[in-house]
This record gives sequence, structure tokens and C-alpha cells, in this order.
Amino acid sequence: MTKTHDFAAVVLAAGQGTRMRSDTHKVLHPIAGRAMLLHLLGSVDSLSPARTVVVLGKGREQVQSALAGREVRFAVQEEQKGTGHAVQQAAEALGRYEGAVLVLYGDTPFVESATLARMLERLDAPDAPGVVVLGAVQNDPAAYGRIIANGDRIVKMVEFKDASDEERAVRLCNSGMLAVRCADLFRWLGQVGNANAAGEYYLPDIVNIAAGEGRQAVVITGDPYETAGVNSRAELAHLELEWQRRRREQALDEGATLIDPESVWFAYDTKLGRDVTVEPHVVFGPGVEVADGATIHAFSHIEGATIGACASIGPFARLRPGADLGEKTKVGNFVEIKNAVVAKGAKVNHLTYVGDAEVGEAANIGAGTITCNYDGFGKYKTVIGAGAFIGSNSALVAPVTVGDGAIVGAGSVITRDVEPDSLAVARGEQKGIAGWAARFRSKMTRKAAE
Amino acid sequence: MTKTHDFAAVVLAAGQGTRMRSDTHKVLHPIAGRAMLLHLLGSVDSLSPARTVVVLGKGREQVQSALAGREVRFAVQEEQKGTGHAVQQAAEALGRYEGAVLVLYGDTPFVESATLARMLERLDAPDAPGVVVLGAVQNDPAAYGRIIANGDRIVKMVEFKDASDEERAVRLCNSGMLAVRCADLFRWLGQVGNANAAGEYYLPDIVNIAAGEGRQAVVITGDPYETAGVNSRAELAHLELEWQRRRREQALDEGATLIDPESVWFAYDTKLGRDVTVEPHVVFGPGVEVADGATIHAFSHIEGATIGACASIGPFARLRPGADLGEKTKVGNFVEIKNAVVAKGAKVNHLTYVGDAEVGEAANIGAGTITCNYDGFGKYKTVIGAGAFIGSNSALVAPVTVGDGAIVGAGSVITRDVEPDSLAVARGEQKGIAGWAARFRSKMTRKAAE
Amino acid sequence: MTKTHDFAAVVLAAGQGTRMRSDTHKVLHPIAGRAMLLHLLGSVDSLSPARTVVVLGKGREQVQSALAGREVRFAVQEEQKGTGHAVQQAAEALGRYEGAVLVLYGDTPFVESATLARMLERLDAPDAPGVVVLGAVQNDPAAYGRIIANGDRIVKMVEFKDASDEERAVRLCNSGMLAVRCADLFRWLGQVGNANAAGEYYLPDIVNIAAGEGRQAVVITGDPYETAGVNSRAELAHLELEWQRRRREQALDEGATLIDPESVWFAYDTKLGRDVTVEPHVVFGPGVEVADGATIHAFSHIEGATIGACASIGPFARLRPGADLGEKTKVGNFVEIKNAVVAKGAKVNHLTYVGDAEVGEAANIGAGTITCNYDGFGKYKTVIGAGAFIGSNSALVAPVTVGDGAIVGAGSVITRDVEPDSLAVARGEQKGIAGWAARFRSKMTRKAAE
Repeated sequence: MTKTHDFAAVVLAAGQGTRMRSDTHKVLHPIAGRAMLLHLLGSVDSLSPARTVVVLGKGREQVQSALAGREVRFAVQEEQKGTGHAVQQAAEALGRYEGAVLVLYGDTPFVESATLARMLERLDAPDAPGVVVLGAVQNDPAAYGRIIANGDRIVKMVEFKDASDEERAVRLCNSGMLAVRCADLFRWLGQVGNANAAGEYYLPDIVNIAAGEGRQAVVITGDPYETAGVNSRAELAHLELEWQRRRREQALDEGATLIDPESVWFAYDTKLGRDVTVEPHVVFGPGVEVADGATIHAFSHIEGATIGACASIGPFARLRPGADLGEKTKVGNFVEIKNAVVAKGAKVNHLTYVGDAEVGEAANIGAGTITCNYDGFGKYKTVIGAGAFIGSNSALVAPVTVGDGAIVGAGSVITRDVEPDSLAVARGEQKGIAGWAARFRSKMTRKAAE
Repeated sequence: MTKTHDFAAVVLAAGQGTRMRSDTHKVLHPIAGRAMLLHLLGSVDSLSPARTVVVLGKGREQVQSALAGREVRFAVQEEQKGTGHAVQQAAEALGRYEGAVLVLYGDTPFVESATLARMLERLDAPDAPGVVVLGAVQNDPAAYGRIIANGDRIVKMVEFKDASDEERAVRLCNSGMLAVRCADLFRWLGQVGNANAAGEYYLPDIVNIAAGEGRQAVVITGDPYETAGVNSRAELAHLELEWQRRRREQALDEGATLIDPESVWFAYDTKLGRDVTVEPHVVFGPGVEVADGATIHAFSHIEGATIGACASIGPFARLRPGADLGEKTKVGNFVEIKNAVVAKGAKVNHLTYVGDAEVGEAANIGAGTITCNYDGFGKYKTVIGAGAFIGSNSALVAPVTVGDGAIVGAGSVITRDVEPDSLAVARGEQKGIAGWAARFRSKMTRKAAE
Repeated sequence: MTKTHDFAAVVLAAGQGTRMRSDTHKVLHPIAGRAMLLHLLGSVDSLSPARTVVVLGKGREQVQSALAGREVRFAVQEEQKGTGHAVQQAAEALGRYEGAVLVLYGDTPFVESATLARMLERLDAPDAPGVVVLGAVQNDPAAYGRIIANGDRIVKMVEFKDASDEERAVRLCNSGMLAVRCADLFRWLGQVGNANAAGEYYLPDIVNIAAGEGRQAVVITGDPYETAGVNSRAELAHLELEWQRRRREQALDEGATLIDPESVWFAYDTKLGRDVTVEPHVVFGPGVEVADGATIHAFSHIEGATIGACASIGPFARLRPGADLGEKTKVGNFVEIKNAVVAKGAKVNHLTYVGDAEVGEAANIGAGTITCNYDGFGKYKTVIGAGAFIGSNSALVAPVTVGDGAIVGAGSVITRDVEPDSLAVARGEQKGIAGWAARFRSKMTRKAAE
């Protein structure tokens, strides 16, 4: 879709989220590794809004800090006086903006940009209505407010509790999201009263006012996922699961094998190449890209990592941010890689920590190797040359360089650079005491018997 | 509920459990890390029974040993002659007890104490019946015996195989559990015959006899989980899953984030604080308490551990009994902690075993550190002071103390105490042989070619 | 079933599998660790076919190499001209064979040999038809072709798109699999035309021709799993799941406890003894046998391993091919065992790599022990005697032998054999520098402040 729209977004995020029982602001709870609000803003941003206003209440510092650096204006709703009141707080931040306004919700993250575009298009159509409501067809409409429509014209919006049986049988529900011209919005909001049990100003009331002018329409999505909101941890888990379900289906469609799709957890930005195989029980954090033909074995935890073509990862591998693994590399069990470039064909097969390092092509890092990159203050770099062989159970005390083709003897603590093609060994001399073990055992056994 | 009841419990646990195909007694198979029988006795004990009699048959030694130290009397049913016969064996152990008796089943662990209390209350009501049967409304009643009731009065109890179509349409099923006065119980049992195909004495027959006296009533639970029994490993897995489903829901309600609730396995006594996040694929064994704000990353296995506020555990952490982690501690990947106090802010980030130890505040344990706590006979203690820094790949041979603020050089084997604020190093001297690796490679390549 | 059948199998595997989006041939995609085609050939082979012909197209080298060493003949369909054309390509490879032919599909792996036998028996029955089609009763028949039958005689086979509403209501669907006499097969195939949209020769058309001779019958399976084919990764994942579901049920029936059956992944040949407990999140690769009473703790990854009675594995254990663990052995967390015999009662509890080794009875391998089995060229063996004690964080540089009852001091690098009952230590001398750490800290802190 290349058509652009002239619109501003107002995102309501002032709710207390009491049912979350959390000190974290509701809209910052993540799904697929990304705050709900950021998912929503991602969809909004892809339509290039003229401006975006986020209306905040309690806990606003958390949200402001999470959005630092983004082109977003903030408005504050000090008191919880309803959604209509919340939108009114955005007036100043909208400034002289006079175009279309999309009202969205920070806890309803997965409305698609195509759907938002349809709302804006409907608002601009030749028979332009004044307000366009997003309705969702719910399989199980439960207690949602219903939209009674005639074609795309809204006849009536009715709260569940006020609905007749006939109205309750309607499955088209009000999502709360709407598109409206700025001038209309604030004019109508001025007419909304708070004569209700909660004493709040409700945004949907403007639709009823618009109806008086015959200027209201509905845009419909058949996918309730787009309008699903989160009010509790159970709903958060449920929406996470639905996101994952869709992402897994996409991965399969694009040519990855997921042996057990339900035990693979993706992040919002995971990229998988073709013919990637993912075994059961794998977790992707943000920032992962896996090239064609790679295999991610079971029990791997991967974030911020680039995995080259035909690489083999895990089982039991942990890749942390900055792990950059070349083609045909092999990272085996109980291995952690962090901020390290591992070149083509290198192997790090077992029980190893490689941090802040460069590992050359076809190098072999023995079991139990540790790069000692930290002294309690700074982090230092380890460079391992192409074709080098690090014997098992070695410690490489950074900053240190092991030259191309060099060999480090098993059990060494390497504190000085190792020349290319040389052997370095740093270990104690082996001494034996004949019979000592037998004497020790009989002493200990005697002691235990006493 | 503060009301107390005067009652004795008779728990039948003499069944062979043949379909379990197990050498372990059926009632000892665990759910959520606790034997089924212990779940049941927990509910019973919360009502303070006058006495509890467990009727055992084959394999009784296993059960007796599992209940050692509990205030429980045992009765033995040598031959499998039916549930009525089993209850009769409890007569002697009940002794002169004359009050109400609850008859329960060791393989039906999740009846709630509130339900048991309702049964006892009904037995004590002004229009006291002689026997109160617990009925469950089953969604899918299958082959259960049906209870035909008029109000709470039982009209008829009928086995599925003898039931008419109309009776089979009834969803109220007999759980087998009942409350009955002691004197009535044994009087009625004396009238029960064994003229049936199996030649057994059936306990439910006393209800028919009570019906003759017009003294039978039903207490109903709408939750079939309360009356679900286990006769096979598949049913065991099914009941475990249902227990976990409920526990996960509770965790979400109480303000924990479970990204993938279905891959988190709790034990019967797991305690989670508020704003705890649990990533996918985490297993809790018994005895775990997690304080507010802690994060349990994926692939963690935790039992017998206390985790402080805002601690970060895993991924790939294993906490074993006695791990006591302070506030803001960090336990990273491939780390095992056992019987060790780790003070506030200390970090054990990678590939480490800390056993039988004390780790001081803000100490940093480098990757690959091992506390050598065992010499084949005894276990010895390692003490690491506040602010100490243990270089990577070190071995600390216990008993040993590293003083506050001391530094241990990477790759050291520490066998003697380290003074506070000092440096200790114990490693071999690094030696190099120029060109050795190149010569070795050409020799080996030549050899391979031969 | 001891009855033998005289038949040849023709397995069609020439399809492009475009929807798989894979460079791997469709029939080689594995389910439960074994290529789909091999599952199918396993069922065929159990009936001792006179010969088996696999018809291949593009990517045939992959399949031929996967079947190397098997008694299979290959035929090639160069162009994709339909299933009828594909079967015709098998004529030469069938040679002078004149008996019954089973036509099967390489992407439909789970037809049971008993079902195939029923098809062959029906073909041989006194009222022998010329062709026997395998029909499956589908719960959700979707767009499958329907079989309209009268008794076991096929009245009509109709594609979904050509079916009347009445015909679509029929749930008996065409699997495509059929049994037919060789002479009939090729005679009828000669009459099949390609006057259809795709210009292809369709195998099912022979059934219509056979119908003209009144010689067609259907054999029915009630289990759609037997006729489920794979055309996409989603279908592959779905069939894998169904295979696993059945395997898990079997494991429970046979007396294993799976705490979370849905998170345990079996291979096609996994063998579990009685009273084996498998915790959540366990993956079995091919070639595993677990003896009675063993426990596989959570997060274990096991392939090619033999696990003795009452052994305890994991959590976080990785057993690789050739791991042969004796009775009551214990392999703990973050331990990898490869090509190693571990004798009765030996313990390898933490953070260890044991490769190419023998570990004697009741030996104890300390945390962090590494067998250094590889020098970049060859693999060498480590022998650890009975009752030996390997101190933590030791490296054993193979080839090397630690004698029975010997003790290796913690942190040692053992490069020479250790005598039985002796002590061997190989580590650096511990040196201390008083106050060094305090001075280092103040220097670094000063630096940071600059």
C-alpha cells in the first residue's frame, strides 16, 4: 500500500491496569519480546502519521522513558474520568492539527495498519461520515458492546447490558477504535455528558451524537485478534500465544521445519531462512537472524545473534547479543557466546564461554574453554586465529591473542599472546604419590566408623 | 472456615493398581511432586480429624514408610474382597470412635476440604440422614454409576450397566466418597452381601440399605476434578495436567507473568511473588519460594530454593535444595547452586558449580568456577567474602575461605585461605614452543596420508 | 500375522514437493527422527515384498543415497505427467514380475502393514476384484475425493469438485493407495488418457476402467492417520505431532510415567522400560534404550544411548551416540557423554564432558572434569578405573589411564597414566600478594573517575 494518509494518532494509555497486579505499566508488558504499546506504534508508524499523541496517567514516567527518542507527544490525564475525557487531554498536543484522528488503545496492540488505512479511507470517501468505528466479528461476542449496522452505516451502538436478546445475537462488536475528523471530535466531545454510574465521559458517546447528524459508519474486521485487549496476565498470555501461533504458521509456510511448533517461542523480529530446522524447546529473544539451512537443536536460547548458513546450534546453546556466527559454524552443548564473531567453520562444541572475542575460520575451541574477559571493571578482548586449536579446559585471560594455527595445550591458563603456529602450555607439573589414595580411603573409613 | 467437625477418616488404599504397571504403590505416584495420598491427607488434615485410618493391601510397607511420622493408623485388607470389606478392616483401628466417618480413596486426591466439610455438615443437619454420598456433575459421565436424586435425597443409585437410557442421561455421578455415622456404617456393612460376579462386598450397597430406612442424601460438587481417580499412567498424566492448569491460572491471577503457561511446571508448594516473570520451559520442584520482581529465564530447574526480590535466574540454571539467593542476585547459564547462601547482588553468571558455600554481597564468581566440596567421603564448605572476585575457571578446594575483597586469578586452584583484599594465583607458568603446532600438523597430515 | 503375500510395491516419490519450500526431497523429511519414506518402507518390508520399486523425479540422487544398501529398485519419471504416468515408469524395474502390486506414496508414511495385508487379501479373495482401493473414513473429509460404495464394491469414485452435495456428505475418501494385479495395472494404464486441464495421466482413472469390468473393491481404514499425506511443513508438523501423541499413549500404557507427555519427544525406535519416569521437556533422538526404573529428568537430550536400570539422568544431560550407562549410574546437570561406557554406580554429576572413555564401577567424576579426547586429528581414549575419584575441574589428556581407586587432585591436568590407588596432582603453586586487590580496585576506580 503506497497511498499515504493525512492523520494523527491518539493512543490512550492512561488506564490503571489494576487487574494486571503489576508495578510495570500495563502497556509496557511485552508480547513476543516487545512492549504492547510498541507493537501498536509500529503499525501506526508504518502509515506515517502527522503526529502521535500518547495519553498517559499514573506511571507515565515508565512509558515516557520506554518511548524516549521516538517522535511522540505526551498528554496527561490526571484523573480517570473516562475515555472521552482522556481524548480531550490530547487536544493541546494535537495543536493546530485539523485532519483525521485515529483513536487507539495502548493495550490493544495488534490492529493491522491495513485496517487503520481502511478506516481512514472510509472517513475520506465521497459520502464521508464524521466518524468511523472499527467493529470486529466475534465468534464468542460475550459481553462486548454490539454494533447494529445497516450496510456500513451504524444504526445503533448498544452496551451488552442494555442490549435486547435480538441485539445480543449480533456478533459485530465495538472495538472502541475509531477514526474521526479533529474538528468533529472535539465539538462532539464537548457535548458528551457524564450522567452515568461511574460519572465518566465515554468516547463512544460521540458516535451517538454523530448518528444524530447521520454521519457514522463502521469498518469491519473479521479477525478478533486485531481488537483483542489485555486487562490481566491471563489475557496477556492468551494474546502472546495467539501471536506465537501465527508466527509459527508463517515460519512453516516460509519453509522452516519446526518439529514441535508449540514449544518454539519467537520474538517480534526473528528472521528465519529457508530450510532452517528448529527442534523442540527453543526460545528466540529479540534481534535474531538465522540463515538458510541452519539447524537449531533443542533447548537453545538465542537473542541478538546472527547465525550463518548451515550452522549447527545446540542442543543447550545460549547465544547472547553480539554473537555473530559464520557459515557452517558449530556451537554445541552448554556453550555461551556473547559479543563474539565466530568465523566460518569454527567449532565451539562443549561447556565453553566465548565472550568479547574473535574466533578465526576453522578454529577449534576445546571443551571447557573460558575466555576471561572481565576483571571486575572492564571487558577485554580475546582473539583466536584461523585454524587455532585451544585445548580443553583452558582459560584465555584477555586481552590476549592466540595466533593463526597455534595450539594451546589442554588445561592451560594463557595470559600472554601465543605466536602463530606455536604451542603454548601453561599448567602445573604432574606429581604422583603411590598408595596415597588407598591410605586416605582407609583413614576416612576408619574415621567414619569411630 | 473455622467450624470444626468431629469425624474420622477412612482412606482406602488397598487396590492393586494393576493398570499402572508399576512397582510403586498407586497412591504414592506423585502429582505436582507430592504423592496422591499426601494430597488427600492434606485436605483431610486441614479439617482436624479425630483419627485417620488408611486401609492397605499389597505393597503396604511402601505406604507405611511414606507416611512415617504422621498421625495415621493402618488397617490391612489381606484379600481383595471389595470396598465394603476394605472398610470393615478399619473397624479395629477406629477403636471406640463413634462419630462421623468419611470414607475416601487414596487414588482420588483432590476432593476439597470445603466439600468434605459440607458432607459432614449435611450428616449433622437437623434432618440428619444416615449416609451422605458425594456426587459429581460430570460433563461426560461415561460409565460412572448414576445418582438419581430428588432434591438432595437419593432416590436410587444405579450402576451404568444396569441403568436405563433415561437414567444414563442423568449427569450426577457417584464418586464413591461418603460420610456416615460409625455405628450405622458397621451395622449396614454387616448386611452387605457378595452375591455378585466378582464375589466382592461393595461399599455403595450400604446406601441402598440406608435408603430402606429413608436415611440417605447427596452432596454435590460441580467440579469433576474433585472426584477424579487415577487408575492408569494416562489418568495420572491427565490429573497432573489439570492440577497444573489450575495452578498456572492462579499464578497469573496473583500477578505473575507466565509467557507460556503450558510449559511451566509447578510443585504443590511453589510460592511466587508479585511481578515475577517466568519464561517458557521452567520446572519447579518442591520447596521453592520466589520473591517479588524476580525473573526466571527459560530452561531453569529449581527445587528447594529461595529466590530473592528482583533476582535473575537462568536461562539454563539449576537450583538445588538449600540454594538461598539474595535480592538482585544473578545466576546465569549452566550454573548449579546447591546448599549455598548467595548474598545480595552477587553474580554467578556462567558454567559454575557452587555447592556447600557462602557467597558474600556483590561477589563475582567467574565463568567455569567450581567449588570442590567433596572428597569422596565428606562435604566441605567454601566461604567467599563480600566483594570478592573469583577469576574464571578456578577451583576452590574446600574447606577454604576467600576473604572480603580478595581476587583469585583466572585458572587458579585455591587450596589455602585467601586473605581479604589480597590477590591469589595458582597456575602453571606459560611456556611456548615456536613452530611446534605447524610441525605437529604436518606430521599428523603426513601420517593420515600414509 | 504369519501369512505371507506375493506382491511388489511401487512407491511414488517423484513429486516436486514445491509447497515444502525445501532443498531436501519431500520424502526424506523426517518424522520422529526417520525419513517419511523409510517409515513407509518399514511397513512394506515387514510383509516381505517380492520387490520394491521407488519412482523418483527431481532430486533423485538424495533419495537414492538415503536408500543406499536397501533392496530397492529405482525408476525415473523425468517429466511430471501424473501418477498414472509415474506408475508406468516402474514397468521396467518390475521386470517380469506378474503378481499383485501395491501402489503407495512416499509422502504418506503411516499406512499399517496390516492394512496393506488386508488389501492384498481382498485382491486374492475368491471373488477377486481387479483393483482394491484403500479408503479412509475422514471426520472432516474436506476436499478429498469421495468413494461411493455398495458394501465393499465401489460404485463410483468422484473428485470433490465434481461431487454432488449428497456425494460430498459421504465420509469415505480415496487415499490413492491401491492393490492391483500387474497385468491389469499396465493394461488399464494403457487406456488412461490425459484429456484434463493439467494434461496428466491419473492413476485413479484405472478404477473407473476396472469398474467397467465390474472388478473394483474398497478396503476401509477408520483411521485417517494411515492415509495422511504431507505436502507442507505445517502438515509435516501435524503428522509428527500425531505420531508423538500415539507414541506417548503407548509409553503410558506400558508403564512409564510422563509427567508432561506433550513435552516429551520420542524417536521412531525409542525403547522405555517399566517404571521409567520422564520429566517434562525431554527429547529422544534415535537409538535410545532406557531400562526399568530409570529417571530422565527435565531438559535432557538423548540419542544413541543405553541407560541402565534405575539410572538417574539430568536435568540438563546430553547423551550422545555410544553413551552406555550402567545400572544406578548418575549423570547430572550440564554433562555430556559420548561414546563412553560408564559402569554400574558411577557418578558424573556436573559440568563434565566424558568422551571416548571407560569409567569404572562406582567411580566419581568431579564437577568440571573434561576428557581431552581430540588433538585436532585423532580421537583418543580415557580409562578411569573402578572406584577412582577425579577431583573437580580436572583435565584428562587422552590417551590416559587413571587406575582403580586412584585419586586425581582438583584442578589437575593429567597427561600421564595414574597408578591404581595413588594420588596424582598437577597444578600450579598457590601464591598470594597481600593488598594487591585493594590497590587494583583503587587504581581502576581512579581510572574510571578520570
